[in-house]
Amino acid sequence: MTEVETAERHKSKMEKKKAARDKIMAAKTETRGLVIVHTGKGKGKSTAAWGMALRTLGYGRRVGIVQFVKGKWDTGERVTFEKFGDQCVIEAHGEGFSWESQDLERDKAAAARAWAAVTTMMADDTISLLILDEINIALRYGQLDAAMVVDALKSKRADLHMVLTGRNALDEIIDVADLVTEMTLVKHPFRSGIKAQEGIEF
Amino acid sequence: MTEVETAERHKSKMEKKKAARDKIMAAKTETRGLVIVHTGKGKGKSTAAWGMALRTLGYGRRVGIVQFVKGKWDTGERVTFEKFGDQCVIEAHGEGFSWESQDLERDKAAAARAWAAVTTMMADDTISLLILDEINIALRYGQLDAAMVVDALKSKRADLHMVLTGRNALDEIIDVADLVTEMTLVKHPFRSGIKAQEGIEF
Repeated sequence: MTEVETAERHKSKMEKKKAARDKIMAAKTETRGLVIVHTGKGKGKSTAAWGMALRTLGYGRRVGIVQFVKGKWDTGERVTFEKFGDQCVIEAHGEGFSWESQDLERDKAAAARAWAAVTTMMADDTISLLILDEINIALRYGQLDAAMVVDALKSKRADLHMVLTGRNALDEIIDVADLVTEMTLVKHPFRSGIKAQEGIEF
Repeated sequence: MTEVETAERHKSKMEKKKAARDKIMAAKTETRGLVIVHTGKGKGKSTAAWGMALRTLGYGRRVGIVQFVKGKWDTGERVTFEKFGDQCVIEAHGEGFSWESQDLERDKAAAARAWAAVTTMMADDTISLLILDEINIALRYGQLDAAMVVDALKSKRADLHMVLTGRNALDEIIDVADLVTEMTLVKHPFRSGIKAQEGIEF
């Protein structure tokens, strides 16, 4: 094939892709707040939620973050979010990583406090994006009642986007979500003996 | 099973998980800059990179971003990153979404300009995190030479973290990466007729 033929073939392929894409985009009309789930064993579940927060903050809108696992956060995230002052509301609850905790009743009490913060933020219509960080862990370990969470998601304000993160999302949560992404681990440096490091792992 | 037995079983399970985790963490010793790839058809590839940027910026370190697909970015991201002034260096190149472009030579020229920006930032040792946004697209469409990119990744500064985003990452790139996450689409609102919206899709 000559170079001209290659270029022609490329052009024709791209034209077809563009036509298909334009057709799909034209069919989309409804705008509403979404229930978004980031799950899976891979990295990036919370991090992609921070990226969404960054975007929403850039639009001048308010973001709420409720943390269901204590101690997961670090200085980097905190410092950046604090730069946005009152535009970003953070509530930290929970009791450490699940494997650090060995007391179900204490975990349930912490999850209940985190959930109270969620309901308060859901009622605050100045908040556009609400991130329930690691809530899937709390649900999976029975620290929080799934039916209660599902009911709340179903009855949320139409203009509110909610992001639920954490591995092992329950089927009930997937069912009620509009957008679910599974982060899958393909390759991980822990396997080759590299330790967790600032800015990357935490 | 009584409530006491349930609590005991939970405690024993969590103790075992914690012991296994502690053992793994103790074996990790090396600290070095990673080559990280976010790929797959799901959402969150670039967004998780922004989340990493946010964390790195919070530590007071500098972030470089080179954009290989023009027009993908929007106001939200820009405004937030601009808040960090000189701590964040952004170079936008590329020629629109791949399906918008029907001219391979023009795309190659844009990719070459983007790559020149990458090599400059790789040489700048004040930059801790370098994000090559949508470079996988440029590589997949033959706009950029894969061998050249692989060589550069292999010879990067030891303290530099690099993140390569975009679907359809080439095998050569996966091979050279330390950490690869595939974002898999489980459920998507486009399928149910909801259009792309500010702060979520763009």
